[in-house]
Amino acid sequence: MKAEIVAVGTELLMGHTVNTNAAEIARMLAEVGIGVYYQSVVGDNPERLSAALATAIERADVVIACGGLGPTEDDLTRETLAEVTGRPLFRDEEWARHLEELFERRRRQRRRLSPEEDYPFPQNNLRQAMVPEGAVLLRNSRGTAPGIYLEHGETTVVLVPGPPGEMRALMHEAVLPRLRRRLSASGEGAVLLSRVLRVIGLGESRVAELLQPLLAAQSNPTIAPLAHLGEMHLRITARAPDEESARRYLADTAAEIRAVLGDAVYGEDDTSLEAVVGELLVEGGLTVSVAESCTGGLLGDRITNVPGCSRYFRGGVVAYSNELKSELLGIDPELIARDGAVSETVSRAMAGGARERCGSDLAVAITGIAGPDGGTPEKPVGLVYISVADEREVECREFQLPGDREEMKYRTSNVALEMLRGRLLARARGVSGRT
Amino acid sequence: MKAEIVAVGTELLMGHTVNTNAAEIARMLAEVGIGVYYQSVVGDNPERLSAALATAIERADVVIACGGLGPTEDDLTRETLAEVTGRPLFRDEEWARHLEELFERRRRQRRRLSPEEDYPFPQNNLRQAMVPEGAVLLRNSRGTAPGIYLEHGETTVVLVPGPPGEMRALMHEAVLPRLRRRLSASGEGAVLLSRVLRVIGLGESRVAELLQPLLAAQSNPTIAPLAHLGEMHLRITARAPDEESARRYLADTAAEIRAVLGDAVYGEDDTSLEAVVGELLVEGGLTVSVAESCTGGLLGDRITNVPGCSRYFRGGVVAYSNELKSELLGIDPELIARDGAVSETVSRAMAGGARERCGSDLAVAITGIAGPDGGTPEKPVGLVYISVADEREVECREFQLPGDREEMKYRTSNVALEMLRGRLLARARGVSGRT
Repeated sequence: MKAEIVAVGTELLMGHTVNTNAAEIARMLAEVGIGVYYQSVVGDNPERLSAALATAIERADVVIACGGLGPTEDDLTRETLAEVTGRPLFRDEEWARHLEELFERRRRQRRRLSPEEDYPFPQNNLRQAMVPEGAVLLRNSRGTAPGIYLEHGETTVVLVPGPPGEMRALMHEAVLPRLRRRLSASGEGAVLLSRVLRVIGLGESRVAELLQPLLAAQSNPTIAPLAHLGEMHLRITARAPDEESARRYLADTAAEIRAVLGDAVYGEDDTSLEAVVGELLVEGGLTVSVAESCTGGLLGDRITNVPGCSRYFRGGVVAYSNELKSELLGIDPELIARDGAVSETVSRAMAGGARERCGSDLAVAITGIAGPDGGTPEKPVGLVYISVADEREVECREFQLPGDREEMKYRTSNVALEMLRGRLLARARGVSGRT
Repeated sequence: MKAEIVAVGTELLMGHTVNTNAAEIARMLAEVGIGVYYQSVVGDNPERLSAALATAIERADVVIACGGLGPTEDDLTRETLAEVTGRPLFRDEEWARHLEELFERRRRQRRRLSPEEDYPFPQNNLRQAMVPEGAVLLRNSRGTAPGIYLEHGETTVVLVPGPPGEMRALMHEAVLPRLRRRLSASGEGAVLLSRVLRVIGLGESRVAELLQPLLAAQSNPTIAPLAHLGEMHLRITARAPDEESARRYLADTAAEIRAVLGDAVYGEDDTSLEAVVGELLVEGGLTVSVAESCTGGLLGDRITNVPGCSRYFRGGVVAYSNELKSELLGIDPELIARDGAVSETVSRAMAGGARERCGSDLAVAITGIAGPDGGTPEKPVGLVYISVADEREVECREFQLPGDREEMKYRTSNVALEMLRGRLLARARGVSGRT
């Protein structure tokens, strides 16, 4: 089964937005066993959009068009599909009501804030409730633009909205299950499955070296290493006649890799490092707090991206200024004056202070120089001291991390989570101290 | 003059690599005044590559094909172009010698490391010295694959290698200067410039409504609205015979939009909301601190993404647990027991507490329910109370924000920054209280 992706939007065509949606949709399709044969991008122009859709419908079995479903005049994908397929548009009354209700709720909120203003319902919005004859409306739980699923002759045409979060949710919830059913109905059963092993604490070339025999021998499954900020992903892809065999291939290869890399594999697929750390905290019945300087709250932000983190996360202190390091964490100002805010002693004191003031079992402290300014020959930009404290000891490590300000902050938060994970693994195994 | 970009590579088609090259090439072309009308992606497949090139050559004035110029069997772009245009390939003897010299140097290096092994010159490499009849070879200073520049009938066809660094260097050094000359020879000297206005506090449909007369009348400059998480971008694009006129058109249209949307336009191009807030704080000689519950540190993280923020950011408290709200911000536990941690009173007390404990001029406090669990009918997921305190008063607003956990957190941080901005603007204008 051949698929084509048509991305719609002048911002993509002009290069102001990078077309990440096309890549993401292609990967999703590959996972249900559908190969993408063409991708194209057209702007918000009726003639060219019409030509692109017509070409795609003619040559592909599945067409996924992404973008151009908004409420404004230049959002044309829905109308153009209706025209190209010769299907009149009907209003989906349920979605129209839903849009009106959504708007009414917002109006009430705004009225409370500015009672003097009026907010009439923008009639344009109702275009988003229009559906070509014979198509199915796919409810969008995150936005006002629903998806469209249409079986047109031999071709399945799908429209999904452009905002990545909405596209992703609709693809997973509504589109991929339908395509899977269509595939199994047509008896085309080659399954392509993939799985990602997430690796931390080892560089790209070290991973390549350790896995050299496995990488050299690969054919099915294939192993593709991909470097990410502060970590590495190994994508294993298996092809098999049925899902069970594909899963077995994946599991075997994953086990071989884990045997070589050990604890450096911290999780699989979409499991984040913060989620893994959260599980370890729950298993140990432990709580944690943070004391952040150069990361400004990023570590706490990441920890709280995990639903249910209130079971183990107490909170912490963003001690950006030196005064707050003393006032909120109880650090001796003379220590800061003597060793500097970016030093091992201050990092250790921050961790101890956070643990005590926040009443948590463990605490993680970060102090460093995020740049671009503020570095010196002795303490260059990228220098960071990270400490993990528990009831037995405070461990501190010094790192020199690359990248611009935001990259450096992110890498720092990654290393901090990895140190915390190391400590939790060691505690769980009954080992004390450094791992 | 119409351009089309053809990106070649199975890794792009399958989504394992995001097509950043197409976006980058499109922006480069726009800067010399050439608009991109189509982009497409094909894999390393001779039939489909041939079809894509033929279509592009037929409908575009300029075709830029990127990728597939390597030395391996599946690099087909050069040969396919020769075939599609009916031009035999000739060897460029100078480039062939260059390749052999390059290889000889590497061989000597390898021999030094492993003298016992032999490294014969891979004859395949010489494919990279082949050029279609009538085409110009563009020397690549960073790799073995040269570019190709061919005037074929009415169409200019350019091949550039896929590695972004090589593509970029060849485009700047060899391709764009040639295209500029072609443009001025044809008398089409148009310059295409664009500018983004960043809008906050108004929904997409409300902005469209307010700008309706401007949007309806647009032809040059064009105005393209684009929704982002918690904000909107309006991209203005002007076409003019020279840069000065294009800049004037942009400035005029930007002024018209600002006249309609007022303070809702918070910045231009890449200026972030946190950077704008930072500038206002510096101008006012003011400091700020944060007290975050559901956002877990995200607001502090964003504020500290701005270099130099230590001039105005003191830090703050991540008061995730109720105990920390009391212990670190001094909130009466009975108040939390009575009204709940997610309430207007607690939000106000958090802002006041942060301001006092952190010794800052202003403080921003956030308490809400990020979900997916923890919501009730009275206090649903997405409910958030944000407060801004200064020496005169504490302003608190209630919001009901959509999206999953991370989206809700991001939108919350955006609204908090927007409230802070409102207060700073009002202070700068000498107005007290609500704006």
